[in-house]
Amino acid sequence: MIDDPDRREAFHLNVMARDGCARAGILETAHGLMHTPAFMAVGTAGTVKAMTADAVRATGTECVLGNTYHLMLRPSAERVNELGGLHRFMDWPGPILTDSGGFQIMSLSGLRTLDADGVTFRSHIDGSSHRLTPGRCMELQQLFDSTITMALDECTPFPATMNSAAESMHLSMRWAKACKETFQQRPGYALFGIVQGSVFPDLRALSSEILTNIGFDGYAIGGLAVGEGQETMLRVLNDTVPLLPDTHPRYLMGVGTPDDILECVSLGIDMFDCVMPTRAGRTARAFTNTGIYNLRNARFSSEAVPLDRDCHCPACRNHSRAYLHHLFRANEILGPILLTWHNLTYYQDLMKGLRCAIRAGRLSSHIESVRAGWQRKEGFA
Amino acid sequence: MIDDPDRREAFHLNVMARDGCARAGILETAHGLMHTPAFMAVGTAGTVKAMTADAVRATGTECVLGNTYHLMLRPSAERVNELGGLHRFMDWPGPILTDSGGFQIMSLSGLRTLDADGVTFRSHIDGSSHRLTPGRCMELQQLFDSTITMALDECTPFPATMNSAAESMHLSMRWAKACKETFQQRPGYALFGIVQGSVFPDLRALSSEILTNIGFDGYAIGGLAVGEGQETMLRVLNDTVPLLPDTHPRYLMGVGTPDDILECVSLGIDMFDCVMPTRAGRTARAFTNTGIYNLRNARFSSEAVPLDRDCHCPACRNHSRAYLHHLFRANEILGPILLTWHNLTYYQDLMKGLRCAIRAGRLSSHIESVRAGWQRKEGFA
Repeated sequence: MIDDPDRREAFHLNVMARDGCARAGILETAHGLMHTPAFMAVGTAGTVKAMTADAVRATGTECVLGNTYHLMLRPSAERVNELGGLHRFMDWPGPILTDSGGFQIMSLSGLRTLDADGVTFRSHIDGSSHRLTPGRCMELQQLFDSTITMALDECTPFPATMNSAAESMHLSMRWAKACKETFQQRPGYALFGIVQGSVFPDLRALSSEILTNIGFDGYAIGGLAVGEGQETMLRVLNDTVPLLPDTHPRYLMGVGTPDDILECVSLGIDMFDCVMPTRAGRTARAFTNTGIYNLRNARFSSEAVPLDRDCHCPACRNHSRAYLHHLFRANEILGPILLTWHNLTYYQDLMKGLRCAIRAGRLSSHIESVRAGWQRKEGFA
Repeated sequence: MIDDPDRREAFHLNVMARDGCARAGILETAHGLMHTPAFMAVGTAGTVKAMTADAVRATGTECVLGNTYHLMLRPSAERVNELGGLHRFMDWPGPILTDSGGFQIMSLSGLRTLDADGVTFRSHIDGSSHRLTPGRCMELQQLFDSTITMALDECTPFPATMNSAAESMHLSMRWAKACKETFQQRPGYALFGIVQGSVFPDLRALSSEILTNIGFDGYAIGGLAVGEGQETMLRVLNDTVPLLPDTHPRYLMGVGTPDDILECVSLGIDMFDCVMPTRAGRTARAFTNTGIYNLRNARFSSEAVPLDRDCHCPACRNHSRAYLHHLFRANEILGPILLTWHNLTYYQDLMKGLRCAIRAGRLSSHIESVRAGWQRKEGFA
């Protein structure tokens, strides 16, 4: 597929292997390759919290996510641009995806007014007034030099009536069209549209159809993991994924737990992002091959064994569970540093395992064995 | 000197070069070499704050310091010992010096009672009662497997009358003797005595004589940098250093600024420790070849240049001053991580420069040029 001359120009997913609905592929971007299914580390304000860029690379992360809302307020998109763009600013020459800012405007900013053309809001930092429109949203992400730009959308709150979900979805679709018209196409750069429609199959189908007709470089599924529960989320994905072009990457926004990822990869999702591994890393929660642990728990105080025997991160290679426990008890910054490093390594190893399993055609047995591992809570002395 | 068979057994300083009173040497310890003059990074609770052990090594640090007070309270010396000792606990196979705990008992703990045999105090963490005697102090540091053990002393408060300084000094000397009697000599391990006597030359001289007669592997100078000012401190050192054995390392405790270090190396000090580079790194203060900067200052918000052009640390190699400014403004953990890394690198490069200058016999001209650099506040766009 890489040699198809029509394909070489446009941004698309090079699917290398399939297993059921799942696929393993490669995205060729202006800033290097991304192997899918991919987990993108969240780097909110131009930093993956508690990690140097070198450390993020060492976890196997290929793409990081920046938050347009945070960066537009501080240090501002113009400042990032003057300093050479977000890649140079944060020392991340690899692919960067930025969100549209819409989600944080809804969740973080104070007063905000939505109208047909955009949203006016106040900064949660200093109360200053800002306006985000589809055009400005594209401009901001171009100033950042984002590899993957997200269309402006309204993340429909959950629960929503079908009427309000429809109204919200149609607003997002008009904004998506306006984004497509403004976005400056450049080789290896991408604009992704975002499917909305809450938990209503007809709305999701309509949204998918509208976006596909506009034509994007990739398709995100938004408005999920907002309280609807895993079962509902999987039902929506099961209905929606088949409606999205097979040739383009599919990105499930803000998801999720390791278990969510196993399920969603099986349904054909190619890209994920979530604060979970990094946020959990700052609060002593560890994701491991033998389940989830809270390292503040007193039972870890004497455990000389590594957090996860199968992990190659510095926390597991160089230290005991007892040391990690001590760091969190003593409120030492090294606790969050080491555990964020570990959790991101765990997520990236999980993705690598899924990619291998898809290529080997043994995804379901691989998933079973990953799940079996989670049941073994081992190592307690 | 290394080939002198009598010397090979006992802990001593291999002096490789001299320039005035300054000397460049090598300490051979059970846990590897230390090049002197040396700056030891402070690793209070079994971690140099905000740094992985690999990062500390990358700064050029050869020896780290652990605080007996903090470690005895949490996780406890017995726990550290069960887990293989402090080297293994914190992933630092190199030399570790631990203080006696006396200083923090005076500065941090609540109720405390001093008697001839030791001190009884309450933990600042949970109020539990503890007792520290010379014997227990030696035991604790052996449980940690400290390379360099410090004798228990009372750090005489400043200012003190000559009478109270004398009384305090004599208490410390009795404790030092008791420590020497209890300390278990092992090859490559050392016990250091601590000279006290406040700012009184006669007391300092007497303390030096008593300690030298007892006989230690190294001699620390305590009770300085406690508010007496640099001029007084240098006067005390000028009087005291010549009274200490030339064959053994001299360690100035808790000092200091880069300028203090230049002065004290010239007077013949071999070892330093100070929280300054690490603490400053967490509060946006940067030590550089062109002076001291506060990175929160708004003028850094647009500076695309590195913090210090001559520095090889990740903060300077990979990022702009504007990025570091942004991290501190946004309260991102990466700010303290990168700036601690930089400040420790700056201190270690300063020590390396001093060692080279001593070996080249050009210490005073080197110090002049370091100071001239600090006058050039450069790089403001």
